[in-house]
Amino acid sequence: MIPPAKVTLVEVGPRDGLQMEKEFIPTETKIAIVNAIARAGIRSMEVTSFVSPKVIPQLRDAAKVMASIDRVPGVTYMALIPNLKGAERALAAGTDVVKTVLCTSDSYNRRNVGMTVEESIRDCGEILQFSQAHGMRAETVIALSFGCPLEGPISPSRVVEITGRLVAQGYKEISVADSMGLANPVQVRRMMRLLQDNFRTIRFSLHVHNTRGLGLANIFAAWEEGIDEFDSSIGGLGGSDVVVAGASGNVPTEDLTNMFTEMGVETGVDIDKILVAARLAQQALGRPLPSYLLTHGTPPHFYQRVRESEAKKFAPHRKAE
Amino acid sequence: MIPPAKVTLVEVGPRDGLQMEKEFIPTETKIAIVNAIARAGIRSMEVTSFVSPKVIPQLRDAAKVMASIDRVPGVTYMALIPNLKGAERALAAGTDVVKTVLCTSDSYNRRNVGMTVEESIRDCGEILQFSQAHGMRAETVIALSFGCPLEGPISPSRVVEITGRLVAQGYKEISVADSMGLANPVQVRRMMRLLQDNFRTIRFSLHVHNTRGLGLANIFAAWEEGIDEFDSSIGGLGGSDVVVAGASGNVPTEDLTNMFTEMGVETGVDIDKILVAARLAQQALGRPLPSYLLTHGTPPHFYQRVRESEAKKFAPHRKAE
Repeated sequence: MIPPAKVTLVEVGPRDGLQMEKEFIPTETKIAIVNAIARAGIRSMEVTSFVSPKVIPQLRDAAKVMASIDRVPGVTYMALIPNLKGAERALAAGTDVVKTVLCTSDSYNRRNVGMTVEESIRDCGEILQFSQAHGMRAETVIALSFGCPLEGPISPSRVVEITGRLVAQGYKEISVADSMGLANPVQVRRMMRLLQDNFRTIRFSLHVHNTRGLGLANIFAAWEEGIDEFDSSIGGLGGSDVVVAGASGNVPTEDLTNMFTEMGVETGVDIDKILVAARLAQQALGRPLPSYLLTHGTPPHFYQRVRESEAKKFAPHRKAE
Repeated sequence: MIPPAKVTLVEVGPRDGLQMEKEFIPTETKIAIVNAIARAGIRSMEVTSFVSPKVIPQLRDAAKVMASIDRVPGVTYMALIPNLKGAERALAAGTDVVKTVLCTSDSYNRRNVGMTVEESIRDCGEILQFSQAHGMRAETVIALSFGCPLEGPISPSRVVEITGRLVAQGYKEISVADSMGLANPVQVRRMMRLLQDNFRTIRFSLHVHNTRGLGLANIFAAWEEGIDEFDSSIGGLGGSDVVVAGASGNVPTEDLTNMFTEMGVETGVDIDKILVAARLAQQALGRPLPSYLLTHGTPPHFYQRVRESEAKKFAPHRKAE
């Protein structure tokens, strides 16, 4: 297996990152963040969620945001939706791709959307049909693929089983999610190998949380298994506290961009511009975000800083200039 | 290559972690931290540094600390030394292993210890002879193996060359260090493979900094290449600002223990006890340390918290008990 020479980073900050923020972020700020991300070379992005404003008040401006952002050519603008009604709203707002989420366990899926997994799969099928009929793409996320808060570790065969059912519904793009940051690189390697061996025509992507600091290691392992699409969020925004305080943020987009760039893998993302977007988000939220690159920069940034500091040291008269 | 089923975590917190702290940490606190680490099942630890108190005032109590800690059977107590005089002091204090450090570039090595790399290698040879003559073990660290602040990226052949010179001096244990957190997993994989292919009888270990969040990914890649010894520091203590603000801390021992345990690899470390040691260090330093596990715990901790929270939810009368 030769790892991919090129990968797609799917930015989820504006959606997964902002959804749990208590203080409402002005619609204009959200739009500015989305536009800054697109300008940095990100080619796929979750812009918002078409959910009930009662459930996630922060994203009550979903339609406004989706309709008002710049449409940079070549960028796919996605939205999360909970049901067919969400798909209709997403379509009306001009969404390119809708994403549905289901969990691996009945107990958690019931708590999340009030349905069994099987009922959610049938819903996903309807959403796919609706989307295809209207020229919109649809993808599914299998949340809690590595562990469920209520049922503990999840067996890979369960994920294969659910994938098979989704494929039978017509899905061709499936995201495997470690929503609580429970996965480790050995587990990720095995899971991604198993899924690709079983479903050779399906494009799998990986969504990890950095709760235990293993996000980049998990992505590295999946990349070596041939996966070429990964979710990340600027500044490491995000984290879900739905059941108990558990997940912390996604992997910061800038940290992931740095890893791939340093490994010689093409992302299409301009590291300096994505840092601009991350700083914009940091400013909007008014607190430091859990990003390594925001503090330390890339290795080339580091070498540049050293050169400048050395130049000053050996030319002290310049200080006065 | 089947990755090792068992690994050794070398704790460097008391040395690499504390050396740059400006406020003096009482000797008693240092001793308590070292003893807590040994009680957690760590079998190898850098206790202190026998350097000039003028250079590193924080470790001016090196001899006192080394002589006063509990000697837990089976634990190897190590110290960093800059020269033969340091080796003599380390020996007098009852050190099991002395570690010397040299850099990959002449320019940085000169700045660090006032000598060329070749002069440092000869010094290391003398220290090894002295140590062996007195029943003390000696190891060497090749610092800046992946990049040098003054000379930029370092070619693997340079590290192979230095390793060859150290092996010629009689060294059998060599640590490869990414002192500024510049390495990426692809680079680490190649370097560790190259070194092991060239020096089959040498035991290599890896020392990484987590400056760009890649510490665990780098260790994972090295482990898959057969490396079974890794430096880490409780709470992620440490970071060097010698040239410019650059490196942040080492990989937190508790985060590394969690990764290996979750991957089914034996560390011998008790995660709860190492968290006790990390909290002790956090308390001594009076600021939050950059550790994921200190905040989020292991996956089993997480499942346990959910079970307890669920139990409360469905038995609300218990709240009053």
